[in-house]
Parts: sequence; structure tokens; C-alpha cells
Amino acid sequence: MGLGEPGSAGIILIGDEILSGKVVDENARFLIEELRELGVALRRVTVIPDVLDEIAATVRDFSERFEHVFTSGGVGPTHDDLTMEGVARAFGARVVRHPELEALLRGYYGAKLEDRNLRMAEVPEGAHFVHGDQPTWPVIAMKNVYILPGIPEIFRRKFKSIRERFRAAPYFLKSVFTSDEEGRIAGELDRVVAAWPRVQVGSYPKLDHPEYKVKVTLESKQQADVEAATADLVRALGGSVVRVD
Amino acid sequence: MGLGEPGSAGIILIGDEILSGKVVDENARFLIEELRELGVALRRVTVIPDVLDEIAATVRDFSERFEHVFTSGGVGPTHDDLTMEGVARAFGARVVRHPELEALLRGYYGAKLEDRNLRMAEVPEGAHFVHGDQPTWPVIAMKNVYILPGIPEIFRRKFKSIRERFRAAPYFLKSVFTSDEEGRIAGELDRVVAAWPRVQVGSYPKLDHPEYKVKVTLESKQQADVEAATADLVRALGGSVVRVD
Repeated sequence: MGLGEPGSAGIILIGDEILSGKVVDENARFLIEELRELGVALRRVTVIPDVLDEIAATVRDFSERFEHVFTSGGVGPTHDDLTMEGVARAFGARVVRHPELEALLRGYYGAKLEDRNLRMAEVPEGAHFVHGDQPTWPVIAMKNVYILPGIPEIFRRKFKSIRERFRAAPYFLKSVFTSDEEGRIAGELDRVVAAWPRVQVGSYPKLDHPEYKVKVTLESKQQADVEAATADLVRALGGSVVRVD
Repeated sequence: MGLGEPGSAGIILIGDEILSGKVVDENARFLIEELRELGVALRRVTVIPDVLDEIAATVRDFSERFEHVFTSGGVGPTHDDLTMEGVARAFGARVVRHPELEALLRGYYGAKLEDRNLRMAEVPEGAHFVHGDQPTWPVIAMKNVYILPGIPEIFRRKFKSIRERFRAAPYFLKSVFTSDEEGRIAGELDRVVAAWPRVQVGSYPKLDHPEYKVKVTLESKQQADVEAATADLVRALGGSVVRVD
């Protein structure tokens, strides 16, 4: 299904409750760690309000940029649940009631079913179901956009049930801790960045740490490059290196 | 300076370290609560990588949409510190070395100054300084974009020193907890949403809570509307209301 950059992903959190500070995000935080472990390159996380046009525009944009897109929230029976309609609009599709979901909902609610619960059987026309490895309801996807609910317990359970389909080559990471300041090592970092183009190098100063001033991270899908770039940097920084992880 | 929607704000987190899960965001989390307390309407939070064109495009977009824009991260002397150049590019400006910042840096580092530390005196041409109410370095702003560092301690200290300039009319919030499911109250919520157009209504189901199934939030800058809409909803939901905060 990949429409965007191969191996890339984006996360869209849909929810006034996060922007207004009523709820602290747990889902992006969870998914960031999952995607990294899976070797997927997360390129963007965006939190947007429960506004139809913003959902549609953001989903369309992400769908074109990234191979996989995950949305969180806005799925349910109330007025502020606009994700299905927003995703449909992103692709110029209608929203239709899906008979398989309707049957699931009727089975789940039984006599307690309210008409409005059936809104949760409405999906973008052309959506497909992704059946996971756990006995849970399917994840609804429209092209490369996986639509997940905002309730953290269900978000996690649903993602975990389908996570292996996203697995890619792993990342290899090394961290070099130095007692020098960033300004002092910046030139050597430039050289290492230029010498090892397949290695991502990050420089993270730490205030008031007893042991080190900067943590340098070296990361790549090419393990040999990470090892060599790390050895190169450690040699160059000499005695200021206090630890390599 | 407001270029976008009055009273609105956007946050841009610039940092591979967040997208790759090496660092858990603290700055957006802090700023979300601060902005809410100040009565500022946060409309979007986006996390982007350390990529010049993405910084420029995102800053330009946010600057047009929102009255205030805050960036976090990418400020420093190393290769991955691209925020100043990205903000400059967003506005078609050059990056220039600012004599006042250079003097501050020379005073701070003294004999230990490395050439590369002077990169932190480089700002977009046309940037202005915002002097806060605490004895700290000024915040650098370009038009309506406030450029804050990624280190959480400094991010917080700098924002706190200038926070009062953003203060707007406060929000008023009520929460209604009900033992009914969302599907059952959805119709009444629709009615309340239509009857009280200046009140934002949110519906948040909770799994497995012993006391309630849904928390409904009602929020507005018009206190009387929030009170009236809450009374209206509580009346309509009747005995299913277990608590009002």
C-alpha cells in the first residue's frame, strides 16, 4: 500500500483533549517506541483538533508523504468523533455502513444497542480490515492509513495485534558520552557526519550531569557503519570520552 | 505581531531524538498546560526531524495559521542544530551574527570560548529579542515565532520569563460524569452542542471505571454559557449523572 517514502511513518493524534491539556498523550508515546523497535522510521507526529477539514487535510498530506500513517482518536458515536468522515474526505470517498462491523456491533451490544452505536459501523468506502494475531476486532484501514481509537488500552491492544506486518530492518545505536562541551566537539562531529553518510549523528547536551556534558548518538540500519563511525569518533575525542554504550 | 487566528498558538518540536524514541517530550507537555492556563487556544503540535526544509515549511505554515508559534530544539553549535537557519528560510531571511548575543556568549565562556560557540549568536535577520521578567538571556523571536531551546530546564525557564505577554481571557471548564454509555447520550450531546454554540463539548469514554462510563467536558471563555449548558445537560441526562466538577 505504501504511497510515501518507503519504511517511513507518521502519527496523527486527533483530539481537542490533548491540545487543551485535559489528557496527556499516551498513544504517540507508545507508538514511537513500538515503531523504533520495529525498524520503522517515524518522520512526523501531529496533534490536531476535532475539526473535519483539518483531519482530512492532514491525513491526505501524511498519506502522500509516508508509507504508513496511524491515526489516534475521534472514533466513536458522538458529535466529536469525526475521524472516519475526515479520512473519507481525505480520499474523496463517502462514508458507508459496513455490514460486517454492523453485525459485530449488534452481537456486542445485543438488546442494549442504541441507534447511535451503529455510527461505529461507518467507515470510508473502500476501507479494508486488517485482522491481527489476537482475538480482537479488526483494525480499519483506508489505503495506508490505519485508524485506531483514542482510548489507550484499546489503542495499544489493536496496534499490538497488527504490529508485525510493519517490521523492517532494525536500527543499530551507539551512544558516546563526553566531558567536553558541544562547541568543542562540533568540528569533529561535522567530520564524522561527512565521513559516514549512512549514520545519523545526534548531539544532546546535558545540564549539570556529574559525569558528562554531551551524549552523542550514532545510529543506522548498517551495523558496520555504526561501529566504525563510533570507533572513529571515540578516537578523535580521546580522553574526553567517559563512556560508550 | 499576530499573523494568524487571534488568540491561537502552535508548537513545533524539532528533534530526531523525539521521533526515534531516545527522548520523551517534556516541552510540549509543559507548554500545553501553560498555554491553557494563560487562556491561549493551542491548535496544533507537530514533531518534525532535524531537516532544514521541513523546519522552514512547518514554521512558515504555523506562522500564517496561528497568532503565536513556539519552537523547541535545534538551537546550539552542532550540525544537527538547524532551527535558526530553518526559521530564517521560512521568512526568506538570511542568518546573521548578532553583536549583542556575541557579547553575551563571550562574557559567558570567557577564555573557554570555542569558535563554534559563536554559532549561537547567529539569528535570522530581522529577529527581535523578547526580554522577560527574570534575569535570563532574552528569547529570540522572528515575527510571531518564539525560538526556544530543547533542553527542558532552559525551555521552561525561558518560557516562564515571558509567559505573561501571552495572557488572554481565561477558559471555564465543567465536567459531567455519567454512568450511561456514549451511544445513549449522543443525541442529547448533539442537542446541547447546537443549543450552546460558544461551548466546546467533549465526550470521553472510560473503560472499566467503577463510577462512570463517560466524562463530558463543557468549556468556553463565556462562563455563563458553560454554567447554563452544564445545567441543561445535567437536567437532560437525569439520574445517570454521577458527578459534576
